[in-house]
Amino acid sequence: MHSPPGATLPGAAMPIYEAIRDLPIVSPHGHCDPDWWAHDRAFPNPAALLIQPDHYVFRILYSQGVPLADLGIGPNGKDRDPREVFRLFARHWPLFLGTPSRIWLEHTFRQTLGIATPLGPDTADVIYDQIADLLTTPAFRPRALFDRFGISALATTDPATSDLADHAAIAASGWSGRIVPTFRPDDLLNPARQGHGAALDALADMTHRDVRDFADFLDALRNRRAAFRAAGATATDHDVPTLATAWLDRGQIETLHAGAVAGTLSAGDANAYYGHMLTEMAQMSAEDGLVMQIHAGSRRNTNRQLFDSVGPDMGADMPGPTDWVGGMGPLLNRVGNDPQLRIVLFTLDEGSYARELAPMAGHWPSLRIGPPWWFHDSPNGIRRYFDSVVETAGYHNLAGFNDDTRAFLSIPARHDLWRRGVALHLADQTDRGTLNTAETADIARLLAHDLAVDTYRLEAG
Amino acid sequence: MHSPPGATLPGAAMPIYEAIRDLPIVSPHGHCDPDWWAHDRAFPNPAALLIQPDHYVFRILYSQGVPLADLGIGPNGKDRDPREVFRLFARHWPLFLGTPSRIWLEHTFRQTLGIATPLGPDTADVIYDQIADLLTTPAFRPRALFDRFGISALATTDPATSDLADHAAIAASGWSGRIVPTFRPDDLLNPARQGHGAALDALADMTHRDVRDFADFLDALRNRRAAFRAAGATATDHDVPTLATAWLDRGQIETLHAGAVAGTLSAGDANAYYGHMLTEMAQMSAEDGLVMQIHAGSRRNTNRQLFDSVGPDMGADMPGPTDWVGGMGPLLNRVGNDPQLRIVLFTLDEGSYARELAPMAGHWPSLRIGPPWWFHDSPNGIRRYFDSVVETAGYHNLAGFNDDTRAFLSIPARHDLWRRGVALHLADQTDRGTLNTAETADIARLLAHDLAVDTYRLEAG
Amino acid sequence: MHSPPGATLPGAAMPIYEAIRDLPIVSPHGHCDPDWWAHDRAFPNPAALLIQPDHYVFRILYSQGVPLADLGIGPNGKDRDPREVFRLFARHWPLFLGTPSRIWLEHTFRQTLGIATPLGPDTADVIYDQIADLLTTPAFRPRALFDRFGISALATTDPATSDLADHAAIAASGWSGRIVPTFRPDDLLNPARQGHGAALDALADMTHRDVRDFADFLDALRNRRAAFRAAGATATDHDVPTLATAWLDRGQIETLHAGAVAGTLSAGDANAYYGHMLTEMAQMSAEDGLVMQIHAGSRRNTNRQLFDSVGPDMGADMPGPTDWVGGMGPLLNRVGNDPQLRIVLFTLDEGSYARELAPMAGHWPSLRIGPPWWFHDSPNGIRRYFDSVVETAGYHNLAGFNDDTRAFLSIPARHDLWRRGVALHLADQTDRGTLNTAETADIARLLAHDLAVDTYRLEAG
Repeated sequence: MHSPPGATLPGAAMPIYEAIRDLPIVSPHGHCDPDWWAHDRAFPNPAALLIQPDHYVFRILYSQGVPLADLGIGPNGKDRDPREVFRLFARHWPLFLGTPSRIWLEHTFRQTLGIATPLGPDTADVIYDQIADLLTTPAFRPRALFDRFGISALATTDPATSDLADHAAIAASGWSGRIVPTFRPDDLLNPARQGHGAALDALADMTHRDVRDFADFLDALRNRRAAFRAAGATATDHDVPTLATAWLDRGQIETLHAGAVAGTLSAGDANAYYGHMLTEMAQMSAEDGLVMQIHAGSRRNTNRQLFDSVGPDMGADMPGPTDWVGGMGPLLNRVGNDPQLRIVLFTLDEGSYARELAPMAGHWPSLRIGPPWWFHDSPNGIRRYFDSVVETAGYHNLAGFNDDTRAFLSIPARHDLWRRGVALHLADQTDRGTLNTAETADIARLLAHDLAVDTYRLEAG
Repeated sequence: MHSPPGATLPGAAMPIYEAIRDLPIVSPHGHCDPDWWAHDRAFPNPAALLIQPDHYVFRILYSQGVPLADLGIGPNGKDRDPREVFRLFARHWPLFLGTPSRIWLEHTFRQTLGIATPLGPDTADVIYDQIADLLTTPAFRPRALFDRFGISALATTDPATSDLADHAAIAASGWSGRIVPTFRPDDLLNPARQGHGAALDALADMTHRDVRDFADFLDALRNRRAAFRAAGATATDHDVPTLATAWLDRGQIETLHAGAVAGTLSAGDANAYYGHMLTEMAQMSAEDGLVMQIHAGSRRNTNRQLFDSVGPDMGADMPGPTDWVGGMGPLLNRVGNDPQLRIVLFTLDEGSYARELAPMAGHWPSLRIGPPWWFHDSPNGIRRYFDSVVETAGYHNLAGFNDDTRAFLSIPARHDLWRRGVALHLADQTDRGTLNTAETADIARLLAHDLAVDTYRLEAG
Repeated sequence: MHSPPGATLPGAAMPIYEAIRDLPIVSPHGHCDPDWWAHDRAFPNPAALLIQPDHYVFRILYSQGVPLADLGIGPNGKDRDPREVFRLFARHWPLFLGTPSRIWLEHTFRQTLGIATPLGPDTADVIYDQIADLLTTPAFRPRALFDRFGISALATTDPATSDLADHAAIAASGWSGRIVPTFRPDDLLNPARQGHGAALDALADMTHRDVRDFADFLDALRNRRAAFRAAGATATDHDVPTLATAWLDRGQIETLHAGAVAGTLSAGDANAYYGHMLTEMAQMSAEDGLVMQIHAGSRRNTNRQLFDSVGPDMGADMPGPTDWVGGMGPLLNRVGNDPQLRIVLFTLDEGSYARELAPMAGHWPSLRIGPPWWFHDSPNGIRRYFDSVVETAGYHNLAGFNDDTRAFLSIPARHDLWRRGVALHLADQTDRGTLNTAETADIARLLAHDLAVDTYRLEAG
């Protein structure tokens, strides 16, 4: 599963893998920038492409004492020569041994960039030049890469108040690539977020509603959801640090909404408000069909010094435990029995796979379990996931794969790693006599492609 | 371990398995209905036998949008044709791929019912007819199946206020099968249960004690325990949603008891009362020798709409985390050093195996670890169990196997799956050189048979 | 991995193991008694050497009903004949099947003591005599064994108020073995510990400071740290039952210090005080270079009857869950970005490996993850550790191996088991194509030796 590009898999896994290896890539959740395909400009340089935007990569160097500024990150790093950054990265390449980042990067170097030379201090310059040259060619523009990667659909993640101009530009361009937005209303719904007040103002401006009024606020949200659907969106996404959905009576929620607008809620009230709003979102999803994604349990920006000096997304977001049964209870008891509603749950707390998520997905008609998220999108993470969820939830209550990345070039590598993981898992099942060859072929295709299409309602173009 | 009936196991596992495959089945904990053997009536039809009573099975269909009423479950389903129910089940049979339910059902179809045809939409009717015909024959009556399955002892689970009439009828029948009751006093001890008041009334009636008085209440409980022992019981069973045993002083518990009788306790006080009563039960077990079983951490009936409209046991019970060390502390510090006392602990929180249960069982003379419970009674669940508990607790602090089922026909399949899991685990140990062949043979027999007999004190007939 | 001494490992693991098997042993954390090497006296008898001081061993017998007094432990056991104790142990030897204690003891019997006879009731006496004879010979004195085991450095764990006389005696002896102390200030810093008041008095005496004054108290701590460094210490160690570091303002901490000195703090305030003092220790480590070890999550002496009648360390310490991200937050936000500071974290909550410890170590420059601790120092525990931490933290954020034992004779066995575990893990990686042969050789050496030297700053003699 860790295998390098081209490597064979043992025993029964290889034919299973070969049958799904070249299926189209469905990427229903991720953080690529739609601007890339709207304008199809060349990527600037190897460091800006591969290192600086990828906190999976630079966090490892930081953990071993490399200052972020030396990597050209943050205000103190803004004049750093990208070639120097790439050299520094190459010198620390052995730190990545054993990590999925190394597998993804090697796949990118060899398969996508065609570089046969192993990376190291002595080869950093020549590899830098090779990549820099490639980036000037038409074949390495965003649209050409998208087509070459065989991506049939890719979802970006967009603030609810985005004007979706990049998506409009893509649609107007005549290019055939399918890039859809995802409705992400966290800034509007969670008063604990820094951008909450500004987002409310933007919402009021865009929708011409008095968002201080709760009914108007809900209406404005419906309005934005409709705009996203019109732009091709099939899903919403919610980042929930501490999962505790709620259903408050109308008087209570109106009072909290007034506090949220005024910015005066306590931390507890803010979380109760957000918990209620998630249930409102689920109700809207039951009406308009947008698939609801809940990513729960990430404690954001735990390194305050770094956050204050450089900003968010610096590798200091840390997973925490999540009470899925208790946390989802109020929402599910409001709308969870509706088979038209679809909710995909993502956890960072692997202990909850077998204990909570698999039993929940094996019961509630609305639920599916998202693939291993973030640090768990790795060979062992994928193995633990199948080990823990399938026996209780079956395969049809899973959501297929997401790459969830902002590192565009890693997309084929991530899907390849997943497909290898699927093949290894299913080969184990045939070795034990559970599944026969026809069954494994069906399930492999489900996991590699069909479940993602079905879960995210991406069938129609 | 997932292997279908008759399938071989790899390498050293096969001879280990073959040596234990045909040992008598000891079933010291489960939920079969003693009425079956008391009256030995034919089972009504395939749907009523295999689908409708088994929430492991119908929950998977429900999770994919099949209404329970269509399966003949609940008030809206009561007139459903069982053949239609079976067809619906057959159509959704692929949903079970990868689940232990599929392994158990396939074992039941092939081994017990002798059906070679694979199940599917096209074969549903012919298989339905085959099973329906079999159920009319003497060989498929409850007692004949019990004998054919090679069950040496089977425990049912019975409310403390049961009159044990079915067990008396079995004893009086002259049939040789050993069916023993298990003392389950949850309704008497946990004021949070719906049936608490009615159970107290029934206890007062049966024992002619004034159960409003705490000393009389304890005496009435002793009286019922004695009645159960006289009917062959060797164990008690306790369902503990939130484990927090306690030992209160006499004044406190008498006050709480008055509140419990009056039905006026707060949720916190009700749990404190139940926590104290568990310690009382442990003390009585130390006196009368009944093995105490604690099943902790199941959050019951989390789907309120289903509970209100259909009832309990609809697949919406959900596991939760359990603090075993803290939760058992007061009870163990009262009686846990007594080697005559035996307590078997069952968890739904696999993270507690290596962290808490194995260290506890490796220290306290009274404790043994129960086998994987509920969703974890599965190939990977069994593997994770051995992986997590043996190194710290050894084998002799385990309790052997329970099938814990109300699906009588699945009993041979469940024990077979466990025995395959034992063989695979032990073959791993020989591959690594830890255990030699003689040692694995001894331990295999322990795990498949002897530990269950010894743990549950089922030696004497 | 479970393999007995001399056993081969499968496939690619054997050559990896052979290349690291005979590397010097680095033992940077453990609980051996420095008195052994200071005075180099013969060990008294087999029971006192192998059974009575080792709670890993006697807890298993206790868990199956053997009274501790029968093993010569506690006030009621003090006149027990050691030969009888050894016989009792031999009779219960099968209880250890599947446990690492059995692997360690078999390694000790065969490799260190040269005993070929399998242990059992019939051989207990002859083996007892063999060991007793060996213990009278010069080759089995502490210093000779230390040299024969190939230990390049061994750290003991010493109260902060130790006079380090044994270490001085070793240094003065001319013997070349490197035994260094470790600074353990728990009794001074955690007001919940029984010895807190006496330790403060001892500190005042040794340092001639008025430790009632907070500034003087800090100065006294610095003084003891300097004394430890002068005696060769490179590390501190902290036992933290409930991890919650803190940084209080000066007024608050001075108030709490007054309460700590007076012995009047509530449990909550005592933990806040200890939490602050851990941050003070981290700041001192950033200054003086002592590596900070945090062992968190052990609930001590959970069997009160045993604690009251026999004392601590009787096998009743029980692991619990730990919130690493929240618990370390205040400390890390104070000093965690300093790459000169080194903190090693040890957990008993394996669920935190992938969820918290690996992401933290993969970010904070100061952090490394300690090896599997206590019950998890076992074949499967080692496998789960590598499985859970490497993909997210890489190899360079690990701390290598600790044996953490007070059972001196088990040290070679424990390091051998780790090295086998390393080889099995790395062989898996080559099988999957992740690592090539040169890379596995490098990493094997890192994990078996170099990382421990580097993490604990043991390079210079």
